[in-house]
Amino acid sequence: MSDINDKALKKHAELRGKIEVNLKEPFTDPAMLSVFYTPGVAAVSDYVAKNPDKTRDYTWLNNNVAVISDGSAVLGLGDIGPYGALPVMEGKSLLFKHFAGIDAVPIVLDVHSVDEIVSAVCAIAPSFGGINLEDIAAPQCFEIEKQLKEKLPIPIFHDDQHGTAIVVLAGLINAVKVTRRTFSDLSIVVSGVGSAGVAIMKLLKTYDADVRIKAVDSQGIVSKTRSDLNDTKKLLLSDGTIDGSTSGDLATAVEGADVFIGVSLGGLVSKVMVESMNTDSIIFAMANPTPEIMPDEAKQAGAAVVATGRSDFPNQVNNAVCFPGVFRGALDNGVRDITDEHKLKAAKAIANLVENPKPDFIIPSVMDERLVPTIANVIR
Amino acid sequence: MSDINDKALKKHAELRGKIEVNLKEPFTDPAMLSVFYTPGVAAVSDYVAKNPDKTRDYTWLNNNVAVISDGSAVLGLGDIGPYGALPVMEGKSLLFKHFAGIDAVPIVLDVHSVDEIVSAVCAIAPSFGGINLEDIAAPQCFEIEKQLKEKLPIPIFHDDQHGTAIVVLAGLINAVKVTRRTFSDLSIVVSGVGSAGVAIMKLLKTYDADVRIKAVDSQGIVSKTRSDLNDTKKLLLSDGTIDGSTSGDLATAVEGADVFIGVSLGGLVSKVMVESMNTDSIIFAMANPTPEIMPDEAKQAGAAVVATGRSDFPNQVNNAVCFPGVFRGALDNGVRDITDEHKLKAAKAIANLVENPKPDFIIPSVMDERLVPTIANVIR
Repeated sequence: MSDINDKALKKHAELRGKIEVNLKEPFTDPAMLSVFYTPGVAAVSDYVAKNPDKTRDYTWLNNNVAVISDGSAVLGLGDIGPYGALPVMEGKSLLFKHFAGIDAVPIVLDVHSVDEIVSAVCAIAPSFGGINLEDIAAPQCFEIEKQLKEKLPIPIFHDDQHGTAIVVLAGLINAVKVTRRTFSDLSIVVSGVGSAGVAIMKLLKTYDADVRIKAVDSQGIVSKTRSDLNDTKKLLLSDGTIDGSTSGDLATAVEGADVFIGVSLGGLVSKVMVESMNTDSIIFAMANPTPEIMPDEAKQAGAAVVATGRSDFPNQVNNAVCFPGVFRGALDNGVRDITDEHKLKAAKAIANLVENPKPDFIIPSVMDERLVPTIANVIR
Repeated sequence: MSDINDKALKKHAELRGKIEVNLKEPFTDPAMLSVFYTPGVAAVSDYVAKNPDKTRDYTWLNNNVAVISDGSAVLGLGDIGPYGALPVMEGKSLLFKHFAGIDAVPIVLDVHSVDEIVSAVCAIAPSFGGINLEDIAAPQCFEIEKQLKEKLPIPIFHDDQHGTAIVVLAGLINAVKVTRRTFSDLSIVVSGVGSAGVAIMKLLKTYDADVRIKAVDSQGIVSKTRSDLNDTKKLLLSDGTIDGSTSGDLATAVEGADVFIGVSLGGLVSKVMVESMNTDSIIFAMANPTPEIMPDEAKQAGAAVVATGRSDFPNQVNNAVCFPGVFRGALDNGVRDITDEHKLKAAKAIANLVENPKPDFIIPSVMDERLVPTIANVIR
C-alpha cells in the first residue's frame, strides 16, 4: 500500500490536479469571440431563457454532471471535510470522462446539515445535467437524496448507495448461478448499515422479495428488541426489508447463512464464522482497504465465491463498473429520475455481460468496454 | 447583428456547449486507476485534510475559478434567470481558458436574494481557487461581493464592476494624454449608476481624488435634493465620490464636461449634447449593442476620442482585456483579496501597453498577448 500511496502523492503533486477545462473547439480567429461570446451569445441566451428545455441543446448541460460531497464519509477516512474530499471528487470526475466521456465537475461543500446541503445543491442545480452524490455520511445521505429527487428535475444518484448496490446485485446473481442456488432461497447477512448497506438490502429485496436478510451493525443484529436504533434501521424493520426476529452478534447472524455481504470493517469476519455458514457460502467482503476476511482465508473456510472491493483480487466490486453507464444513459435518454426499475435493469445487464460465470469471475472488469453502452441502453 | 446571431445559434447547436472537462494526463494502463483514484487517492486526501493549505498543490484548485451568476442582469437582456445566463457563463469560461489558461466552471444559480446567493457561494467555495461574479444586478451585487470578500479566503471579483472600471480607467489615462489634459482637472459625467457605473466612479476617484464626477440615472443627475435615491447612490453622495450639488437632466449634466462615460442605454446622447461639452471631449459610449451615441456622430460633434463596447469600432472597452490577467496573477501569486491597489496597478499596466496613444488607439487589443503576463505581474 505505501508504494501506491507514494506514487499517488507524487503524481498528484506533479500534475497539480487531474482534470482541466478545455474549449470544445479552440480558435485563433478573433471574429469567433463574437460568435462564442458577445454579441452573438446574447441570441443564444435569449432563446434558451424563453425555451429553458432547450438549454441542453445549446450548452454543455447535455453532457455534464456535478460530483458533490460534503466530505463527511470519504473512503475509509471518515469526516475529513471538503478539502480532503476534493482529490477523490476530482478522481471521480476523471473516471466519468475516462469511462463515459462525461464532463464532470467536482463540487465540495462547506456545509453539512441536510437543509444546508439540499439548499446549496438546489441553488447550483441549473448548472448541471445530473448530480452524483458522493461520500456523504449516513443517515443524512438518505434524506438529502430523497429531498433532491423531489425538488430537482435532473437525475440524482448517490453512488455509494446505488452504484454499490447495483454491482453487488449483479455479482450475487452470478454467484447464485455458480453455486447452483435459487435466489429466492437465499439467507443473507449484511454487515454495515450505512449508505451502501442500506441500499444493498433494499435493492436485493426489491429484486426478490423472498430473500431473507439480517442486518448487523456495531451493536449486533438489528433486531426488534433493540432500543438504540435510528430511524433508518427502524424503517428497515417495519417495512420488512430485514428480518429482526433474532438477536445476537455477527457470529450468531452468519450461522447457517448462504451469503455474507460486508460493507463494514476490515478483519471483522473469522474463518470460524465462515465455517459456520452454509456449504459453498458466498462472501462479499468489501471493507476497504482491508476486507472483512481475506479471500484465501474465506476459501479455506469453505466459501465458494469471494468478492472484495480490491483490484488485486478476483471479483472486484467497483462502482466504476456501474455509474458511468448509468449517467451516460440518463443524459442521453433524458431520464429525469433514476428509479428502482432502472437499478434492477442495470444489475441484470451487468450480470449478463459475464457469459459464463465462474467462482473467480462473477463481475465484469471495469475495463470491459461493453459496460457503458450496455448499461446506458437500459437507463431510458 | 442578425447575421452574428444566426452564426452564434448555429454554432452553439452544433457544438452543444463550448467547454468540456478533460483528463490532464489520459491513461490506458488500468493500474493508473489506483494512483488517480482508490486506493492511492486516499493518501492524497488524508494529506490535504491535515494540511488544507496544500490542497492547491495536489488538486486543480491552483488553476480553477467559478464563473457565477444568478442571471439577474445578463448582457442587455436583463433578468433572464439561470438557464438564460448559462451560455454567457460558458462563454466566459471559454475566455478564461483561451486567454489565460485558467480552468473555469460556469455556475448559474437558482436563487436571487443576497443571503441565498452568499450562502450558496460560500457552500461551494472550497471547490474553487477564485470566484468571478458575473451579470448580477445592482444594487444586490455590491452587498454580495462585500460579504463574500469578508467570508471567503479566495479572490472574489465582480467583473462587471471592476473589470469594466479597470479598462475604463486605462483608456481614460491614455485619452487624457491624447487630448493633452491633466487628469486632476477632469470634469466627468457618468451615465448609468448600476454595477459598472458605480465601480467606474469609485475607481476614478481612487485613482485621482481631484476629478469631479457627476452621476446621472434615469431620473437625472444624482443630486442631494432628490428623495428617490437608493442606499448606494446616497453613499456615493455622502462619501464624496460624486458631486451632487447640481440638479437637472443628462443634457444639463454634460454641459461643459470633459468626459462622458456611458454604461446606460443606446441612443441616449445626442450630437447637441456632445457639442455642449468642452472642446476635444472624451466619449466612452459603452451601452451594448447600441452605444449611447455612435462614434461618427460623436466625432462630428467635436469629440476627440471615442470608445465603445463594440469590436467593430476602435477603442473597444472589453473586460477580456483585464480579467484573464487579474485571475492569472491572483492564482499564481496566491492573492486572497483583490484590492483597490491591485485595480489601479492593473489599469496603469494596461494603459502603458499602448506606447503611443492616439485618438483611435487608447486601449490594447484583447488579442495583445502581453496583456495577461503584464497584468498578472502586478496582481501579487
